[in-house]
Amino acid sequence: MTGQSVSPDALEDALRAIGAERYHNLHPFHRALHGGTLTRPQVQAWALNRYYYQCRIPAKDATLLARLPTAELRREWRRRLVDHDGDAPGTGGVARWLKLTDGLGLDRAYVESLDGLLPATRFAVDAYVAFVRDRSILEAIASSLTELFSPTIISERVSGMLRHYDFVTPETLAYFQPRLTQAPRDSDFALAYVREHARTAGQQTAVLNALKFKCGVLWAMLDALDYAYVAPGRIPPGAFRPDPS
Amino acid sequence: MTGQSVSPDALEDALRAIGAERYHNLHPFHRALHGGTLTRPQVQAWALNRYYYQCRIPAKDATLLARLPTAELRREWRRRLVDHDGDAPGTGGVARWLKLTDGLGLDRAYVESLDGLLPATRFAVDAYVAFVRDRSILEAIASSLTELFSPTIISERVSGMLRHYDFVTPETLAYFQPRLTQAPRDSDFALAYVREHARTAGQQTAVLNALKFKCGVLWAMLDALDYAYVAPGRIPPGAFRPDPS
Repeated sequence: MTGQSVSPDALEDALRAIGAERYHNLHPFHRALHGGTLTRPQVQAWALNRYYYQCRIPAKDATLLARLPTAELRREWRRRLVDHDGDAPGTGGVARWLKLTDGLGLDRAYVESLDGLLPATRFAVDAYVAFVRDRSILEAIASSLTELFSPTIISERVSGMLRHYDFVTPETLAYFQPRLTQAPRDSDFALAYVREHARTAGQQTAVLNALKFKCGVLWAMLDALDYAYVAPGRIPPGAFRPDPS
Repeated sequence: MTGQSVSPDALEDALRAIGAERYHNLHPFHRALHGGTLTRPQVQAWALNRYYYQCRIPAKDATLLARLPTAELRREWRRRLVDHDGDAPGTGGVARWLKLTDGLGLDRAYVESLDGLLPATRFAVDAYVAFVRDRSILEAIASSLTELFSPTIISERVSGMLRHYDFVTPETLAYFQPRLTQAPRDSDFALAYVREHARTAGQQTAVLNALKFKCGVLWAMLDALDYAYVAPGRIPPGAFRPDPS
């Protein structure tokens, strides 16, 4: 892909091939999460760390929103803020994620304090926000394209977790249901934008690298969880330690 | 330490206690590295990833240099740039690190390309540079205080690696010898600065947190190496894969 540019269809194929190789549904921690082999403390650790990703997504989207040049683009991107922050206290994706951590028995103040995060979670998520701040608008939009692959993982996750874990209920998984329609709507827009605006070989390479980068963010978050909390379990100093009870 | 400030001596004790609990000499990967239980490809992976830390240290120091308010402080901090970048091609710490990767049989262009880095390495190191850019000068200086603890780890590392690995020679470890005098000189300055300028309880908490943050950076780098390259070994997509030969 260096040298000569390709058609929008070929570019889309290359983006989808990256997902097929690098999306975190392939990660051993995710397979364990869906497959029912994790303990409740391990699911707690996942939800606690993933909360940091969820709560920084509006910051990521606002960072991009501030850089978008037209009202049309900003209106489109603004919907993501509404999805995550809601219209009133207790609504929106971040609040729904807290229903999950509540349902798993985590103290809400502890979750929101971020005190128990793995440092690697913070570094990976902050790298995503910085990428969206520092790179071209085209690359920033392309980095959201992991949502192309999320409906599959969400349906696997919901059905797998409900089937395997008696400590998980449909109510605690309320976060995921709206994402099944929000994510495709968002990724349709982002994909159309990238297909239209990534014309040169350099731009096309940049969007492919942006998607690889974002897959790396999600993958690194699971590496850190797997290393810290799955046997033998090497929790770094200061991070969440499950209650031995 | 919230509420009431403590004496400089008590602050120094608290800083040293953080090192005793969180410095990466305690990490299982480091113990394996020094203890001789790693393979040559595992040592390669360590040197390749650590190269990114080494090559970003001058960027970190220049970022702080640009923020320091007096010629006296800038002259002091400028020595770090000289140490790492040298005075001529082939001199300085970064060049000496490349002698290590050369000696381990890694292709220099591949190392410098950064193509094989673990994403987690990049996220952790970039978080360190961002910390020094975004936090107070006091916190930025405090984050360098891991050098208080480095002479011990360096002497363990050099003697352990020379004893255990026939693919390691004194010449390939040339990076470390000057650090035995540079690091104490640098940390003496930083410690004196922090003792003098961290007066309020809030400032003292901030410097302790800065050192915890930096310990987290170094620790997370080893977590990622251990997860990816030590059995069972789960190398993320796109990262360095040792030659099977």
